[in-house]
Amino acid sequence: MFEAAEVGRKLEKEIYKAQIPVLRAELLDAQQQLLNAKFPVIVLFAGVDAAGKSETASLLNEWMDPHWIVTRGYTDPSSEELERPRLWRYWRDLPPNGRIALFLSAWYSSPIRNRVARRITNAEFDVLLDEVVDFERTLTDDGAIILKFWMHLGKAAQKKRFKAWEKDPLQRWRVSRDSWRHWEMFDKFVAAADRAIRRTSTDHAPWQIVEGEDERYRSVAVGTALRDAIRRGLERVPSHHRVIKSKNTRKTGGLGPALERLERDFNVLDRLDMNQRLDAKHFDEALERQQGRLNLLQRKAQEKGISTILVFEGWDAAGKGGAIRRITGAVDARDYQVIPISAPTDEEKARHYLWRFWRHLSRSGRITIFDRSWYGRVLVERVEQFATEDEYRRGYGEINHFEEQLVGHGILLVKFWIHITKDEQLRRFRDRKRTEYKRWKITPEDWRNRGRWGEYTMAVNEMVARTSTRVAPWTLVEGNDKNFARIKVMKTLADCMEKRLKKG
Amino acid sequence: MFEAAEVGRKLEKEIYKAQIPVLRAELLDAQQQLLNAKFPVIVLFAGVDAAGKSETASLLNEWMDPHWIVTRGYTDPSSEELERPRLWRYWRDLPPNGRIALFLSAWYSSPIRNRVARRITNAEFDVLLDEVVDFERTLTDDGAIILKFWMHLGKAAQKKRFKAWEKDPLQRWRVSRDSWRHWEMFDKFVAAADRAIRRTSTDHAPWQIVEGEDERYRSVAVGTALRDAIRRGLERVPSHHRVIKSKNTRKTGGLGPALERLERDFNVLDRLDMNQRLDAKHFDEALERQQGRLNLLQRKAQEKGISTILVFEGWDAAGKGGAIRRITGAVDARDYQVIPISAPTDEEKARHYLWRFWRHLSRSGRITIFDRSWYGRVLVERVEQFATEDEYRRGYGEINHFEEQLVGHGILLVKFWIHITKDEQLRRFRDRKRTEYKRWKITPEDWRNRGRWGEYTMAVNEMVARTSTRVAPWTLVEGNDKNFARIKVMKTLADCMEKRLKKG
Repeated sequence: MFEAAEVGRKLEKEIYKAQIPVLRAELLDAQQQLLNAKFPVIVLFAGVDAAGKSETASLLNEWMDPHWIVTRGYTDPSSEELERPRLWRYWRDLPPNGRIALFLSAWYSSPIRNRVARRITNAEFDVLLDEVVDFERTLTDDGAIILKFWMHLGKAAQKKRFKAWEKDPLQRWRVSRDSWRHWEMFDKFVAAADRAIRRTSTDHAPWQIVEGEDERYRSVAVGTALRDAIRRGLERVPSHHRVIKSKNTRKTGGLGPALERLERDFNVLDRLDMNQRLDAKHFDEALERQQGRLNLLQRKAQEKGISTILVFEGWDAAGKGGAIRRITGAVDARDYQVIPISAPTDEEKARHYLWRFWRHLSRSGRITIFDRSWYGRVLVERVEQFATEDEYRRGYGEINHFEEQLVGHGILLVKFWIHITKDEQLRRFRDRKRTEYKRWKITPEDWRNRGRWGEYTMAVNEMVARTSTRVAPWTLVEGNDKNFARIKVMKTLADCMEKRLKKG
Repeated sequence: MFEAAEVGRKLEKEIYKAQIPVLRAELLDAQQQLLNAKFPVIVLFAGVDAAGKSETASLLNEWMDPHWIVTRGYTDPSSEELERPRLWRYWRDLPPNGRIALFLSAWYSSPIRNRVARRITNAEFDVLLDEVVDFERTLTDDGAIILKFWMHLGKAAQKKRFKAWEKDPLQRWRVSRDSWRHWEMFDKFVAAADRAIRRTSTDHAPWQIVEGEDERYRSVAVGTALRDAIRRGLERVPSHHRVIKSKNTRKTGGLGPALERLERDFNVLDRLDMNQRLDAKHFDEALERQQGRLNLLQRKAQEKGISTILVFEGWDAAGKGGAIRRITGAVDARDYQVIPISAPTDEEKARHYLWRFWRHLSRSGRITIFDRSWYGRVLVERVEQFATEDEYRRGYGEINHFEEQLVGHGILLVKFWIHITKDEQLRRFRDRKRTEYKRWKITPEDWRNRGRWGEYTMAVNEMVARTSTRVAPWTLVEGNDKNFARIKVMKTLADCMEKRLKKG
């Protein structure tokens, strides 16, 4: 989930300087029009310390007309507030129609902190989160627009930021003993945040994870998102508040192209070290070792009735099939099934898109391998516009919910994206054309998909950002060298099985 | 919640016989058109044993073309099913677009049974229920129509039914030892059902509670609801699945008028014994006693910091004000506030309708008396069409959720509907016109409201059905005799406070 917000996005100073006046004018204009609208805009800032929550809120006040903005930061409830139900103070501060509210450390804060401190169980945490979902839905059903920004920094980046502040006499005050205490609990905090974001990222009030390291980037990311949300709100048909236009809303305005380029250039895929290789000798050794491990582990899993589900996604010609065969080669044929996913059948088309995956869930103790999967919803269906924006956006939550049920049932779920570079793909396509027995593998569709590399990259990046959860993380596999990729897949799988078996 | 389904609705045999062929033709026609539609219809039957769940499902199969109906009853999961996540068997059985599925004892069954048997905590119960809400939303977001019928019988009526069956050699098999064991746990079962219905009655898949005692009534109630739901589904704009026409959908077709009359004639209000009176002497004694109790109880509540919120609703001239004054007369002026609710101010209109009530929540230890309340949403706003059908239907869930938060915070919430008959109201209106100092109390609006007595009655009945929950039940007060009503209100309040104080 947070991988996609630790890729080092930076916006160049010149672009920022040149474009910011345009964005500010657009924001002011949107704010002006909003004043006459029949709905409020509620912006939540949450996230990691030092990721720029309050700085961004201040900046928005600077960029827009602060008269019509309410900014509230919450600390521990006062005795006045403790005497009322938990949400009372937020209800009290709700902005009227036409206004914008910026809330810091609001209704997500205490549930997350209580979970990190283990004062509540996961079930109790979920109940609080669901209460929040109901609250937000009550507001959006009434027309309100809710934007939720999770400002993120990696653990190392946070440390760096604290250290830098400590050295600066003007910033020193920002770092307290609490800051370091929180830093120590970074992993627990992020685990609770992961659960909260997963459970409360609904289609009416989705979370947006913003990389907070670069001030220019995060400011622009939040500013444009706010501008677009207000514009979309103003475009709605007033009588049906809940219908959001389903055409793909392209980013417009001066910074649009720069931001789009940023999203394309800074992504989880391009951070992979694609030069990793494994020579034939080491490959043979490693293959033997990992296949032996897998065989043993699967036999144990079979005994214990623990099922494994593998998801393989990746570019055309990335080598999914080869990786799958190395796994199936290691286990008893009765213990696995491979489900290749292509266009749905008539029977499947007549039902919810998840139905076809539910039906393939195996009895316990087996391995089910999906060669492409439910992620088609947010990849090919998104890019080819087979699914509307509404549908694929809903898809993230539906998929997370589906996977939670699998994992909650005790199933081990391992998801691989096999990555190759665009050049490598071209090489493989040409190779396939030349080789008689591989020719069937390459179709005109493959060439067409290749033409949409940039769009797919953005879709993959968002997929990782929204569905790489604690319960079911993505493993990104550097696939330019097939040997390396195959071993990485097998080793990852074996490690996961080992861990799962230990839990019993 | 279930009060409104224990009023003894009966449909006369002649009407039933004459109209049933029309309803069947309409159902068949709707089913025929549905076949070409791009969505399925899922009907859930849950409820009390012997309330006609399976009989109604069979009847629908008889009335419509069973080729296109899937009927499934679920028992304990098989070993096959236990090896998959809980919802797997329901996913497997989902009907394709164009078809109808009738599910008995489906996804609500095991959570409720587990809660009744105390195998899970309330928090765990809530998590399971929220999982179900997500599941249903996944389906309805995709276009599916979900109808959930809770077939209800009172405890006594259920016993009667079992006894009758036991005497009938042809029906004897229906009553097992389990039946009686369940009957013993009736109250626990109903408490769990109350929570489940409250938490899962969403605007996309609301529950409908059907009184199950009279076979003709329940069959027609379910049949017309199914017909109307299919028709509404077919009328939707296909590209925006989720927009349900917000005009009030009137019941049409042959049985419409008969059913509407039934809903109007059989309601919780008309079952009240309106002849109850209290003479002056007994009134004075009782008043003194109850005021003394209240004074003492409120002082204890103040010490312990326990707040009380009172809701007064009722017909114009029902005597809300008089009842309120008898309460305020008994407690310290610093300990209460009366909030009269009339048309919202500009400030209130610019926000969610619940905002004005949240802002009036008092500090702990006080009594807050709402003279009319948030129930305006589902009463006057419904009848006068100030709120759209979507809005007031959503209102039930929003109100329940609001009240849950109050009660969850430790607040005692007591809700009164003061009832008078239409004749009595007329008498009081005339009296007010004659009495100089009462003349201001009667306005043309009162006369207009009076003209909508039937519509208001139906709104009150539905309000009780949907918001009289375990955590915040309605008390219906027979108000034709003011003395009787005042004492009943005070005694109820004092009893509730006593109970609440005992919990600490």
